[in-house]
Amino acid sequence: MEKRALILFAHGARADSWKAPFERLRDLTQRRMPEVRVTLAFLELMEPRLQPQVTSLVATGVTDITVVPVFLGQGAHVLRDLPLMVDELRVIHPKVAIRVAGAVGEDPGVLKAMTDYCIAALNS
Amino acid sequence: MEKRALILFAHGARADSWKAPFERLRDLTQRRMPEVRVTLAFLELMEPRLQPQVTSLVATGVTDITVVPVFLGQGAHVLRDLPLMVDELRVIHPKVAIRVAGAVGEDPGVLKAMTDYCIAALNS
Repeated sequence: MEKRALILFAHGARADSWKAPFERLRDLTQRRMPEVRVTLAFLELMEPRLQPQVTSLVATGVTDITVVPVFLGQGAHVLRDLPLMVDELRVIHPKVAIRVAGAVGEDPGVLKAMTDYCIAALNS
Repeated sequence: MEKRALILFAHGARADSWKAPFERLRDLTQRRMPEVRVTLAFLELMEPRLQPQVTSLVATGVTDITVVPVFLGQGAHVLRDLPLMVDELRVIHPKVAIRVAGAVGEDPGVLKAMTDYCIAALNS
């Protein structure tokens, strides 16, 4: 049976505090999908990076990976850097299916929740 | 009567495509609060920057400004750069009330929507 993993791919930052909402997102997602391995991976400044994370998942038998860019905007990191990294990963791991979703900020549900938050912030 | 504005403060990026979800967030929020002026402002790489945006709002009679950091994680930009910029703005515009909300990524509703999106991405 295929073994699936979900990688939440985020930018990374110098301040350790930056990571907190991404860790909460990972934990919330993991709780709702206990059968899928849910992990974080970072573009820069934080560990683990995407390539070692994929290698480590594949070593545990994962054969199907979905990467969700946890970015609000789709700029060069999402449109150029990530596809290049995934192309390389597909060459390294030819038997592993790797899919890349759109950035979370493009999702209408996420935009709706951010809108609600902005309105609440103004009136609080 | 006080005239209110909401500034959605985002990082900015080189690629113009990056801006799209922030513009949608601005438009969605504006539609639900037609009585409040809703604008974007960027930390770097994109215009308008925060200080000229505040100056321009104040020039139109705005006296109450809420800044919402449209960032997922709270790193140095949100915890250090933004407070410094706002302190400076309060000195420049002593009669204007300027409040800063928490980053959108810290909101439980936004985290819930991102979790839903990640789960949908895996199963699509």
